[in-house]
Amino acid sequence: MMKKIAVLGSTGSIGTQTLEVVSNNQDMKVTALAAGSNIELLERQIREFKPALVCVWDEKKAMELKVSVKDTDVKVVSGMEGLLEAAVETEAQTVVTALVGMIGIRPTIAAMNAGKDIALANKETLVTAGHIIIPLAREKGVRILPVDSEHSAIFQCLNGENTRQVHKLWLTASGGPFRGRKREELEKVQLEDALKHPNWSMGPKITIDSSTMVNKGLEVIEAKWLFGVDIDQIQVVIQPKSIIHSMVEFEDGAVVAQLGTPDMKLPIQYALSYPERRFLPGDRLDFWTLKEIAFEKPDFDTFFGLKLAYEAGRAGGTLPTVFNAANEYAVREFLNRRISYMEITEMIQKAMEHHKAAADPTVEEILRTEQETYEVLKHF
Amino acid sequence: MMKKIAVLGSTGSIGTQTLEVVSNNQDMKVTALAAGSNIELLERQIREFKPALVCVWDEKKAMELKVSVKDTDVKVVSGMEGLLEAAVETEAQTVVTALVGMIGIRPTIAAMNAGKDIALANKETLVTAGHIIIPLAREKGVRILPVDSEHSAIFQCLNGENTRQVHKLWLTASGGPFRGRKREELEKVQLEDALKHPNWSMGPKITIDSSTMVNKGLEVIEAKWLFGVDIDQIQVVIQPKSIIHSMVEFEDGAVVAQLGTPDMKLPIQYALSYPERRFLPGDRLDFWTLKEIAFEKPDFDTFFGLKLAYEAGRAGGTLPTVFNAANEYAVREFLNRRISYMEITEMIQKAMEHHKAAADPTVEEILRTEQETYEVLKHF
Repeated sequence: MMKKIAVLGSTGSIGTQTLEVVSNNQDMKVTALAAGSNIELLERQIREFKPALVCVWDEKKAMELKVSVKDTDVKVVSGMEGLLEAAVETEAQTVVTALVGMIGIRPTIAAMNAGKDIALANKETLVTAGHIIIPLAREKGVRILPVDSEHSAIFQCLNGENTRQVHKLWLTASGGPFRGRKREELEKVQLEDALKHPNWSMGPKITIDSSTMVNKGLEVIEAKWLFGVDIDQIQVVIQPKSIIHSMVEFEDGAVVAQLGTPDMKLPIQYALSYPERRFLPGDRLDFWTLKEIAFEKPDFDTFFGLKLAYEAGRAGGTLPTVFNAANEYAVREFLNRRISYMEITEMIQKAMEHHKAAADPTVEEILRTEQETYEVLKHF
Repeated sequence: MMKKIAVLGSTGSIGTQTLEVVSNNQDMKVTALAAGSNIELLERQIREFKPALVCVWDEKKAMELKVSVKDTDVKVVSGMEGLLEAAVETEAQTVVTALVGMIGIRPTIAAMNAGKDIALANKETLVTAGHIIIPLAREKGVRILPVDSEHSAIFQCLNGENTRQVHKLWLTASGGPFRGRKREELEKVQLEDALKHPNWSMGPKITIDSSTMVNKGLEVIEAKWLFGVDIDQIQVVIQPKSIIHSMVEFEDGAVVAQLGTPDMKLPIQYALSYPERRFLPGDRLDFWTLKEIAFEKPDFDTFFGLKLAYEAGRAGGTLPTVFNAANEYAVREFLNRRISYMEITEMIQKAMEHHKAAADPTVEEILRTEQETYEVLKHF
């Protein structure tokens, strides 16, 4: 049976790798693509994968693309309305949400309401709206298949297990390029240093998030929702080479771990072919030559963004949205060289302290909280 | 529902730990016990667990026991006939085969024919008669639940997975007390040195087998049968602290591992409560303080018993029986200080070279091969 897939965020790192996976699997087909503004790449994707529909977020770029692909059958749409159309209107059974930012929430909900499974690569969706998404998935009988390597690892470890027998989740973290450094040393960090990730090749935003461990914090909050555990059942452990992608400890003391080379195509393919596994070209782990896997306790004082994530996740309501929006804002400021490296987490902390949290926010309240956080930070 | 269990080999290391697990689980009950000659311990077990039937291999000891437990309702039997009765005649749904040696084969087959699941802790059964046991399990619709920590680990990793998608099994080995030593150094090994195992507390025979890595070789042959893979899909890796109990590599490159503290009660309980997991008192792994997991390639030249096991397993037929019987004989000789440490594996090699292998042996032929191997070795 042909597996039909919509890829929202098709020109980003996860999006392009998703399309590589589709290329390698003859029974997978793309029905819709969505991108921000990179219409050159999107046009190549249209010609290769022949989707029925594409969305370009930027309206002007969408007009340009329409002209350049007028020899094809593709329908070109734009903006949030177009994105919702891409999420819902085609025959896709699974929607890969590889969009960056809270822009991902509405299309995810729309796709779920249309009965589609979600291959989730958009962190913000569960971080800010987990209390809406998880009950909705249950109500609609759709699957949330994690694409992130850590969550996919936990998902793989839970395969065939009873989640009620989970005692703890061990979320692994590489520790990023600044592992082992102290707060004073991080004061001097330059943009160029922060953009070097030791193991994974990713976009600039997530590379910075990985260096501050804010990314791991977001993953902790995501894991809480995905696997229905208490946030304090999730323990982060540094594992510098990213060989163990994450682990589950069961109540009998058994720990099940998923390991692999750092290749995002594995969790992507797993989400798309689940519950089946398939051959995937690429390097394999060789334990005869690997030598060792090392572990460290995270330094919560230096990387206090991780500590803030636990606080936000524990409090819930609108606070994870503030955590995430403040980080987005601060990273943008840092990437534009307007604030220092340590000010990223300081900004998050200030925003969280300033915010009056509300419980059980609607999507509108979540998006309003996002905007309010940006406004507040502008005046700090 | 009450889970009824027969424990064959109840006074040994696995047997006593099985009874500890039964004690901790209110819905488990022992219906039959069998032991070799330790009637003092067996009597205490009778009084605590109140089985309907016990077997003592040694007939004279069985008579003694009959007298001392005449105030109870237990039926005391003896010899192979008694052992078969213990395997079959009670209401047990699961028979734990924790007997040492090829004596385990017949009761295992008898229990399977009676429709009982096997919690397999007797290595020799699959090593020598895997070609009989595995098809029989399928025919009778009974489960073979591994109790060995490595095989249990693989079994746990395969939970919910399709075994046809297995690419490789990584069987971990501690490397024993002589890891890193060379052949010349092993010439001088004394009995006392060989009896010290770094991680697991086990009986003398298996401790020696672990030091020569013959034990790992037996496990490789067992794994081939248990998991239906080719012997060359099984790769042994040294992992000195025995934290990873074994791993499965799937065809997509994902590796799933089971980790834990070295506590045999975990695989025992897992086999008895499968597919459920249950709380088990005991130490837990703490990755914050663990520091590292190290790996090494096995030294097949020094520990050439492991190489011989691959040869025996690859050839099949009666050769694994010769491998196992020669090892049993040689270890006994070593424990009695009649041969040197290195002569253990040399004896196995000689016996294998001397033997004319036959394919698809019956149980009778397997047991005859065992005796012939002993005879041959007497005259070396």
